[in-house]
Amino acid sequence: MDTILRIDMGANGGPKAHEKPLGEYAGIGGRAMTSAIIAREVPPLCHPLGEDNKLVFAPGLLSGSAAAMSGRISVGFKSPLTGGIKESNSGGQPSQMIARLGYAAIVLEGKPKDDTIYKIIINKDGADIVPDNSLKMLGNYDLVGKIKKECGDKIACISIGPAGEMKMAAASVAFTDMEMRPTRHAGRGGAGAVMGSKGVKVIVVDDTGTTTRTPADPEKFKKANQVFVQGLKKHPVTGEGLPAYGTNVLTNVVNEAGAYPTRNFTSGRFETCSRISGETQAETETARGGLATHGCHKGCVIRCSGVYNDKDGNFLTKQPEYETVWAHGGNCEIDDLDAIAMLDRLDDDFGLDTIEMGAAIGVAMEAGLAKFGDSEAAISLLKEVGKGTPLGRILGNGAAITGKVFGVERVPVVKGQSMPAYDPRAVQGQGVTYATSPMGADHTAGYAVATNLLGVGGSVDALKPEGQVELSRNLQIATASIDSTGMCLFIAFAILDQPETFQAFIDLINGFTGQNLTADDITALGKSILKKERDFNARAGFTSKDDRLPDYFIKEKFAPHDVRFEVTDEELDQVFNW
Amino acid sequence: MDTILRIDMGANGGPKAHEKPLGEYAGIGGRAMTSAIIAREVPPLCHPLGEDNKLVFAPGLLSGSAAAMSGRISVGFKSPLTGGIKESNSGGQPSQMIARLGYAAIVLEGKPKDDTIYKIIINKDGADIVPDNSLKMLGNYDLVGKIKKECGDKIACISIGPAGEMKMAAASVAFTDMEMRPTRHAGRGGAGAVMGSKGVKVIVVDDTGTTTRTPADPEKFKKANQVFVQGLKKHPVTGEGLPAYGTNVLTNVVNEAGAYPTRNFTSGRFETCSRISGETQAETETARGGLATHGCHKGCVIRCSGVYNDKDGNFLTKQPEYETVWAHGGNCEIDDLDAIAMLDRLDDDFGLDTIEMGAAIGVAMEAGLAKFGDSEAAISLLKEVGKGTPLGRILGNGAAITGKVFGVERVPVVKGQSMPAYDPRAVQGQGVTYATSPMGADHTAGYAVATNLLGVGGSVDALKPEGQVELSRNLQIATASIDSTGMCLFIAFAILDQPETFQAFIDLINGFTGQNLTADDITALGKSILKKERDFNARAGFTSKDDRLPDYFIKEKFAPHDVRFEVTDEELDQVFNW
Repeated sequence: MDTILRIDMGANGGPKAHEKPLGEYAGIGGRAMTSAIIAREVPPLCHPLGEDNKLVFAPGLLSGSAAAMSGRISVGFKSPLTGGIKESNSGGQPSQMIARLGYAAIVLEGKPKDDTIYKIIINKDGADIVPDNSLKMLGNYDLVGKIKKECGDKIACISIGPAGEMKMAAASVAFTDMEMRPTRHAGRGGAGAVMGSKGVKVIVVDDTGTTTRTPADPEKFKKANQVFVQGLKKHPVTGEGLPAYGTNVLTNVVNEAGAYPTRNFTSGRFETCSRISGETQAETETARGGLATHGCHKGCVIRCSGVYNDKDGNFLTKQPEYETVWAHGGNCEIDDLDAIAMLDRLDDDFGLDTIEMGAAIGVAMEAGLAKFGDSEAAISLLKEVGKGTPLGRILGNGAAITGKVFGVERVPVVKGQSMPAYDPRAVQGQGVTYATSPMGADHTAGYAVATNLLGVGGSVDALKPEGQVELSRNLQIATASIDSTGMCLFIAFAILDQPETFQAFIDLINGFTGQNLTADDITALGKSILKKERDFNARAGFTSKDDRLPDYFIKEKFAPHDVRFEVTDEELDQVFNW
Repeated sequence: MDTILRIDMGANGGPKAHEKPLGEYAGIGGRAMTSAIIAREVPPLCHPLGEDNKLVFAPGLLSGSAAAMSGRISVGFKSPLTGGIKESNSGGQPSQMIARLGYAAIVLEGKPKDDTIYKIIINKDGADIVPDNSLKMLGNYDLVGKIKKECGDKIACISIGPAGEMKMAAASVAFTDMEMRPTRHAGRGGAGAVMGSKGVKVIVVDDTGTTTRTPADPEKFKKANQVFVQGLKKHPVTGEGLPAYGTNVLTNVVNEAGAYPTRNFTSGRFETCSRISGETQAETETARGGLATHGCHKGCVIRCSGVYNDKDGNFLTKQPEYETVWAHGGNCEIDDLDAIAMLDRLDDDFGLDTIEMGAAIGVAMEAGLAKFGDSEAAISLLKEVGKGTPLGRILGNGAAITGKVFGVERVPVVKGQSMPAYDPRAVQGQGVTYATSPMGADHTAGYAVATNLLGVGGSVDALKPEGQVELSRNLQIATASIDSTGMCLFIAFAILDQPETFQAFIDLINGFTGQNLTADDITALGKSILKKERDFNARAGFTSKDDRLPDYFIKEKFAPHDVRFEVTDEELDQVFNW
């Protein structure tokens, strides 16, 4: 990881790749890298789909090493959805492979002169940029199938579907998993649209001839990794709940807490949610010869993923995540797992953020375009997106645009990005994160659900405003750091609760890099990332007024707890005042 | 004008009207009134279509009097298009009639509990609010026809078409003219959507039994009015150009100056613009038995309007304004006056801002939805809006949304509102107004074209940045004042150039109100209005970053003068630093 691969898609004479030394970007990875490059190099008022925006792929600091859980990749850009800086994060195989190829980042820059689309093949000899219009408008599944035929199955793909080519603000970038399926996505914020605007359909990553990155202190690293893995296996969330039921273990938990946003955030309990719970899902998967436990990348020891087969036992999609099951499920009053799995498959194939799409369909249902609970209608609406009809383009640009176009008042977004599967009135710490994260409404940016509902990292009453600002602040700082290591965020459950696992996490970094970082350094890193991101957004025109929930979350009571969001504006403005 | 009529559409037990004393709103009219009420009473972060927004109709200070040109009405609201404060301004009959009824403002507040729609009949006995679902989705022409049958032809209507009912952000509010046709519109910013969200289809104004408002000093007032009218008749713009050819006299002038935005702002000259010029238009109107000279309200002495008949000599629409002819014409490479007149008629009937619609169709053409120059396609696209198809809803929400939904990079908007018929690179003073006006890109907010291109009020080189900030500042201040008097903005040509006409304008106000205002007081009023508007926008989250043109106006050279917008950000930030 000692160079940055910069690919100028707008170069005179056609796209060109250059390897550049790290320079001031030395020693950082993941979100620290993407946010540093975007904040420094992208004009904050540029058009997100214009030549001045950049799309940065950065493996984490530990990616490509033998450290467990280190396969996450960060994707950075100015977001067409929020208008602010974005780091969208994914699992899958490419992070480890890019890191082993020696790239600390791949940066797509500029914009082609015409509408030719390109595939970029990256291997140990460099990058080859090939125009290939035969790939136009292929779904991610067909695309990856075609690439597999051309390049074999030892590679990994980073790709966009039709949604990205059509530059929809809900378009994702897909990353192939261990089975070379395009099931892992940098979903949020429209990374796919930016990739589409650069004319890049797919980046093929081939790490043939490379080896695992070696630590500076192999002994310390190896030992830390052992303790770290033990810690993950010991913790009830990472060692039991997630492996057994996947993230969807949360459906019953969040619903029980009255925080499950049902029918476009109008109630906190979904009457028939047990039909789509993680428990039911795992049972269905197992019965059909799928998998209830499965890793999304090599080196994962939590294995919260799975394989969802159709009724005939054929692969349909990866195990839909909790937020997907909620977005296409309870949020639209849909309690049919097969329909939800089909929607997940279509999202993955078209290249769409499942959260944004579920929220957009929920808003469309509120607008009267379909009835809540009508899963056939939801599937039809999603197919419009893939076809790029006017209705599909509306939905594919997300919940905020859908609300504007259809004149809907109740639209659950912050900074233009839809809220995920936790109502901010019934999980007020999460509401603070939604309101204040530089990313827009995002659960992973500061997952207060952990402490508000799951009792991880302490306990703060989910229904009260007290303590939520401090909770969200600390989680946002920690998350920014973790997102820079390449580590899956789910390690947070174990490192928040188990001091020895936290120490092992720090030892892993120090063993790998040869540094002597302390917990304070990790905190300082997180703060510096958030500061860069906030500064970019301020230069893009964001103010404290953008750090607010839509007013109906403050005005309307939410059942069953009859609670409003009660953290005041003044308190919200203290989140980054550390 | 000694009370405010407040109509609470959300009252328990159904909508209710109350007459309230003026209180702190005493002594102001028009834009001063609407902006004072909105800035003080509407929460800046409320949803524009929600119960907390208000829609304020305010006649000018001189409306209802015998003062020439005093028939303008201001419509104030938080804009669904820009998210900021809005004053949208119209001619027609209602202003004079509302003023004579004694109302300094009519304020629609709250929101009905269901989707019933209402007509409100206002006469000397007060307001009657009648549910009438038979009016649903009527075009403005059919609606006014129906009201005429019910209420006779001595009344005036303030109404919305289907676009307003569908809460489109480009929806206008229509005001009937002297012939009781819905041809005058508060077009910009989505006033119609706010009226739709209040469930109000039409306000019928009946001033039977009222008399012209009497001045405090009748002699002074009468004399001032005479000098004022003489001044208007003497000035070449208000006495010759506008009466003879209407506002469309500008087509040849602006095109000649290389400032006529052609094909979605990609060139400053439209090759065949003479086919749609004011001269050609007037000739066509006269030949078909229409009118090339006509007033939009009683008391108008400029008479820049007209009547455009179809080929068979039947009324089709009022004389399309310059900005309409440009928006549906050159901006879309359309040089067919009949097609443009049809588009104008459809806009008026559906209740849409002609500028925003032309700009949206231009963006749609850039996105490939139709070919530039295809007038049939433009008409089809506009009909989609009236029908409320998904495509129609996209376009009906304006150019910015159309650009977002179709992933277009070159979208000529500021604060979400489309630019009108003058390219900011070739009329740089106008660019300063577009960038900085609290209203979004707006020509009337500070019409620097006058000085940049027409030599009115001095001379400032249109192609250079020097002097533009001061010019725009002074014009924005003067405009805010004029918009508060009920005077048509076109008086500015004469009062800027002729000191005695300016004095007559001040004498008119003083003669009517019995005050002793000076020119400094007029300036102070304008500043105070702009300050209130800017403050509202700041509380709604606007910053200096919203006072910018899209970056391509700074990056791309514009033919034929090969000029970029060169006023710097630092200079723009000085516009309101007086």
